Amino acid sequence: MHQIDVRIEKDLYAANEAIAAENASRLREHGVLGIDLLGAIGSGKTALVERLAPLLAARGRRAGAIAGDVYGDDDYRRIAALGIPAVNANTGKECHLDAHLVDHALDALPLDEIDVLFIENVGNMVCPTDFLLGASKRVVVVSSTEGDDVVNKHPMIFRSCSIGVINKVDLAPLVGADLDRMERDMRRYNPNMQVFRTNLKTGEGTEPLLEALLA
Amino acid sequence: MHQIDVRIEKDLYAANEAIAAENASRLREHGVLGIDLLGAIGSGKTALVERLAPLLAARGRRAGAIAGDVYGDDDYRRIAALGIPAVNANTGKECHLDAHLVDHALDALPLDEIDVLFIENVGNMVCPTDFLLGASKRVVVVSSTEGDDVVNKHPMIFRSCSIGVINKVDLAPLVGADLDRMERDMRRYNPNMQVFRTNLKTGEGTEPLLEALLA
Repeated sequence: MHQIDVRIEKDLYAANEAIAAENASRLREHGVLGIDLLGAIGSGKTALVERLAPLLAARGRRAGAIAGDVYGDDDYRRIAALGIPAVNANTGKECHLDAHLVDHALDALPLDEIDVLFIENVGNMVCPTDFLLGASKRVVVVSSTEGDDVVNKHPMIFRSCSIGVINKVDLAPLVGADLDRMERDMRRYNPNMQVFRTNLKTGEGTEPLLEALLA
Repeated sequence: MHQIDVRIEKDLYAANEAIAAENASRLREHGVLGIDLLGAIGSGKTALVERLAPLLAARGRRAGAIAGDVYGDDDYRRIAALGIPAVNANTGKECHLDAHLVDHALDALPLDEIDVLFIENVGNMVCPTDFLLGASKRVVVVSSTEGDDVVNKHPMIFRSCSIGVINKVDLAPLVGADLDRMERDMRRYNPNMQVFRTNLKTGEGTEPLLEALLA
């Protein structure tokens, strides 16, 4: 049984990666910078899109987004309210987006009118890690309210992302979270990680993060 | 491919449920009340054990716990510090506990010295839903800082639990979370759900929750 599971798991990842590579080509052809947004429920992935889309517009860059969720359209409606092209990608039951779902979402987007495409994954720090989608950058967002041990509990997601965001820094004293521990744990799991601290309610910290995303 | 996946998925659930039923018998034989704790990372599952274990002790009931995580022992160390029997159950890569892991954890616990066993799952609102573990009650913990749309995004987990806890009520005004919406969404998905509001930093709201757990 275990042997069979492992073989199917390998096939599944290989099939996903083939489609992810096609998605990457398609984004490149249309001059779109794809950015994966990963992190737990409520970490601030949608808030990040809400903050970055206007900053991009101020620089003459057009944002677009795929809002991934298990169910519902709460995030999608927030993003559509920004007036940018957006698609709601519900997984139905799955705990992560996969490249095939993103392929369909790309069909529904006006790629020639988008410079930066945010692909917001399902809120979950485990399952999305292994499924590449075709984006060229991967960002993981955590918030102080998840507890300052949240990074230590999830090595794999931090190894798979090059940019880490620690959000809700204003609430850290209220929940007793040690932001330095969170940053230290990120760099321990991924010495090359660029780490940013934000308060996405106010926009604090978003400019340097945007620079890194566009670099 | 899809056909094969569905068949394996069914086998997987059936195999899990058979072991869950054995776990349930074992807990019953030893007079242990098993309580599943589900919810996102940082929602307050471990804090709930920290609050309830002393309240149980004050009533002459002995608590024990299985601390489920992908990796690390942050939660386990907090629970062990309570001086109650505890086991750290790391999944390694999986996004949820399964009955087989719990079976092994039960082997390591002095069941005759435990009246109430908390089984804290991996922090994740999707994957643990489908895997029964053998507990007789299932509790889902959400916190206001996850956003007041967190319930609406995860119908299945609320349908699978009979008790819902809304934690970090003190932070709701700071993050703009509407606690009434969260409670309404819980009852919409599960009309029989008993809903409790807590601030586990102070212990507010834990006594009525404990009553419901022991009822």
